[in-house]
Amino acid sequence: MSKSSLTPPGVSMELHAGNRERLVAALSAHLSASARPLRGVAFLKGGEEQTRYCSDYVELFRQESYFAYLFGVQEPGFYGAVDIASGQSILFAPRLSPGHAVWMGVNTLPYFKDRYKVDFVFYVDELAQVLQSQFSEHGETPLLFLLYGKNTDSGNYSKPASFEGIEKFDTDLSTLHPLLTECRVIKSDMELALIQYANDVSSEAHIEVMRQIKPGMKEYQLESIFVGASSSILHYGHAGAPNDRTLNDGDMALMDMGAEYNFYGSDITCSYPINGKFNRNQTVIYNAVLKAHNDVISHMQPGVKWIDMHKLAEQTILESLKKENIIHGDIAAMMNRRLGAVFMPHGLGHLLGIDTHDPGGYPEGLERPKEPGLRSLRTIRELKEGMVITVEPGCYFIDTLLRHARDDPISSKFFNWEKIEIYKSSGGVRVESNMRQGVIGDLDIDILPFVEKNSYVNINYRKT
Amino acid sequence: MSKSSLTPPGVSMELHAGNRERLVAALSAHLSASARPLRGVAFLKGGEEQTRYCSDYVELFRQESYFAYLFGVQEPGFYGAVDIASGQSILFAPRLSPGHAVWMGVNTLPYFKDRYKVDFVFYVDELAQVLQSQFSEHGETPLLFLLYGKNTDSGNYSKPASFEGIEKFDTDLSTLHPLLTECRVIKSDMELALIQYANDVSSEAHIEVMRQIKPGMKEYQLESIFVGASSSILHYGHAGAPNDRTLNDGDMALMDMGAEYNFYGSDITCSYPINGKFNRNQTVIYNAVLKAHNDVISHMQPGVKWIDMHKLAEQTILESLKKENIIHGDIAAMMNRRLGAVFMPHGLGHLLGIDTHDPGGYPEGLERPKEPGLRSLRTIRELKEGMVITVEPGCYFIDTLLRHARDDPISSKFFNWEKIEIYKSSGGVRVESNMRQGVIGDLDIDILPFVEKNSYVNINYRKT
Repeated sequence: MSKSSLTPPGVSMELHAGNRERLVAALSAHLSASARPLRGVAFLKGGEEQTRYCSDYVELFRQESYFAYLFGVQEPGFYGAVDIASGQSILFAPRLSPGHAVWMGVNTLPYFKDRYKVDFVFYVDELAQVLQSQFSEHGETPLLFLLYGKNTDSGNYSKPASFEGIEKFDTDLSTLHPLLTECRVIKSDMELALIQYANDVSSEAHIEVMRQIKPGMKEYQLESIFVGASSSILHYGHAGAPNDRTLNDGDMALMDMGAEYNFYGSDITCSYPINGKFNRNQTVIYNAVLKAHNDVISHMQPGVKWIDMHKLAEQTILESLKKENIIHGDIAAMMNRRLGAVFMPHGLGHLLGIDTHDPGGYPEGLERPKEPGLRSLRTIRELKEGMVITVEPGCYFIDTLLRHARDDPISSKFFNWEKIEIYKSSGGVRVESNMRQGVIGDLDIDILPFVEKNSYVNINYRKT
Repeated sequence: MSKSSLTPPGVSMELHAGNRERLVAALSAHLSASARPLRGVAFLKGGEEQTRYCSDYVELFRQESYFAYLFGVQEPGFYGAVDIASGQSILFAPRLSPGHAVWMGVNTLPYFKDRYKVDFVFYVDELAQVLQSQFSEHGETPLLFLLYGKNTDSGNYSKPASFEGIEKFDTDLSTLHPLLTECRVIKSDMELALIQYANDVSSEAHIEVMRQIKPGMKEYQLESIFVGASSSILHYGHAGAPNDRTLNDGDMALMDMGAEYNFYGSDITCSYPINGKFNRNQTVIYNAVLKAHNDVISHMQPGVKWIDMHKLAEQTILESLKKENIIHGDIAAMMNRRLGAVFMPHGLGHLLGIDTHDPGGYPEGLERPKEPGLRSLRTIRELKEGMVITVEPGCYFIDTLLRHARDDPISSKFFNWEKIEIYKSSGGVRVESNMRQGVIGDLDIDILPFVEKNSYVNINYRKT
């Protein structure tokens, strides 16, 4: 297995210090604007190690994303605080048992202070006392800004930090979450460098998978090729489902995989025939999706509304399908009936960062649309400099959706049902790139060794 | 990367039907012995899909082990029942949303009935009604035996199944857990075949890692070689910790990894020098551990107490260290002072099955010892036909433990502290095989290509 020749960028704790600075600036501006005093501490709890059900099997630990953003801490069981007035940061490390020390070693507080470049490090069991003594000037009760708010992709709420003695503090549950989420939406140059590296490595790994793929292989074999080639943590598109599908001659592979580097991820989808040769129908669908992908990218710029990009992708795909007589009739009428969503029932793309589906897609005041296709959008925001967003149009022939369209007498007449039946066996296509707004580079189209005449593969890799 | 040439054994649902039969037999015998009527239903809840913190990132699903044992169900969100009187089995499948169907497809109840070979399949939302109508003869309230009991490795309690309307049933929280746990301790031939396969594949994968290991590599690179070579789910020894250690020239590698196949696992440790050549001190320690490993195996037979095997391993290691003048004095006196635990602070081995640390190590009435070393034993049971247990002696030079021994004036005199200081840099050694009781086969000693004179590697692979 070939190893990546790419050199990972250094990971500096300045990245996370910069993230904290942006939070302090946002909190300060918010407090000033509402004529509140510049006091209080942003206070978060990191993730904890999980065991599998009642057993002692420890699941692979991944830091909670907001905590990772602010502190970059790799280990479970921490708390962290950022003082708004001074900008000073404090980490609270768990006090580990001597038994733990025998096997894992115990890192000392100075080790953590040096590693994570914060101003102070204490133990978790000193929390209440430290916060009291450091932040209660003039006899005031210290104010803790806790992280509580809804993730608009999952519908779940983040759990505010809690500890023994928290009842002695003033707490604010509403301010921190929207501000911190908005900080995460706009990436700094240091964050962009990590996301770029995750993209570079993932692109290489996708190519390695393309080189090795053969009919008869199992999806998990490709996954292990990807992991090996990227030497990296994998975000896999179908983590929740067993990926033991066998890849058959004539089928399309739809590989939705991205590497992660120091918390920051990538999310790239490549679609190509497993046997290396597009048949005619696969070419039609692939080109339809690729055109949508490229059209969207050429229209992206700050100020553009993402919902318009989604509609552009739908329209481009519908036009391509019409050219092949898979559908017929007026495109505008189809758009009005939301028929694009029959072929592309997911949103065009999502914010990307420490989470694959990075939060902030629907800040307060922005309502999720209700119409088919549009309601699947994870964001409808205007594009801004510093956002990272995926562009991932797709075209699929999904039984339940086609049946639904066919059962509707008005929608049904737009479809050439004989052709649809033939295309059903072509397999779905999705083409996904990760785009950084503001800087548009050259699109790499890689012609791979196994690709022959009439066949090409876009590796969806965009140098930014 | 070489692919395994091994053929996986077929996975038959008869394995799980057999597991249910053994449970019904055990429950029936227990009820008869306590003069209770032969009625009631063993009722369990399967595992549920988990998302990461508040995000919509779905963690890789692994079925809860007791549920996997009885039903072999791969998907989340199920409940299952086994009727004691008739032996009939029922699965309750979650009713998935139409949105889920678009991407994942929706399997029908007949599909699950056929796949898992149970007598009935209903939806989870029909649970209360089905249990009422099927199991309330003569107007009796149905009795549910729920799974509630302590895992003696983690100290955690399994959560008894619950559902809306459970208050209308009689429930028994104490009977099922110890009986079902005991069923899991003794493996059937079909279970043994899967564990054997997991062992075969893991042995191959360990050899592949040995072939490819080079100074300068990262641990996670070896992990991906292991996964690639075994085409399999990995149980990794250090799941909770980031495995990004760099493997340096002169260091020992301690690879604790095992593949899993249809829920049943393996757990194999190999220790060898990363550069392929044992130096003299590494040879001493490796041979001390290997001798303990082999001595234990040659003494294992039904009726033998596991705590005696642990002491045998300690004593063998102490004798080897004494021969090298690393320690001196009377071995029996050292054993009395539990000095073996300074070099081997963990237990000799543990039950193995669907969990890496399979439950049942301390059934009621068996108390965990309190002494150093012995208290780390995950079981002190007598060996029985059908048990699968790991044999994993180790020898390490761990600062905190050595310091503790040195600080004790009586213990201290047994150690040659100058020598100890020299051996500290040799690195720890553990040799771990998975043993099936009752059938003892030939021990394979594999001499690998990179191993030169004075160097050998036992792959800890025992054909059973």
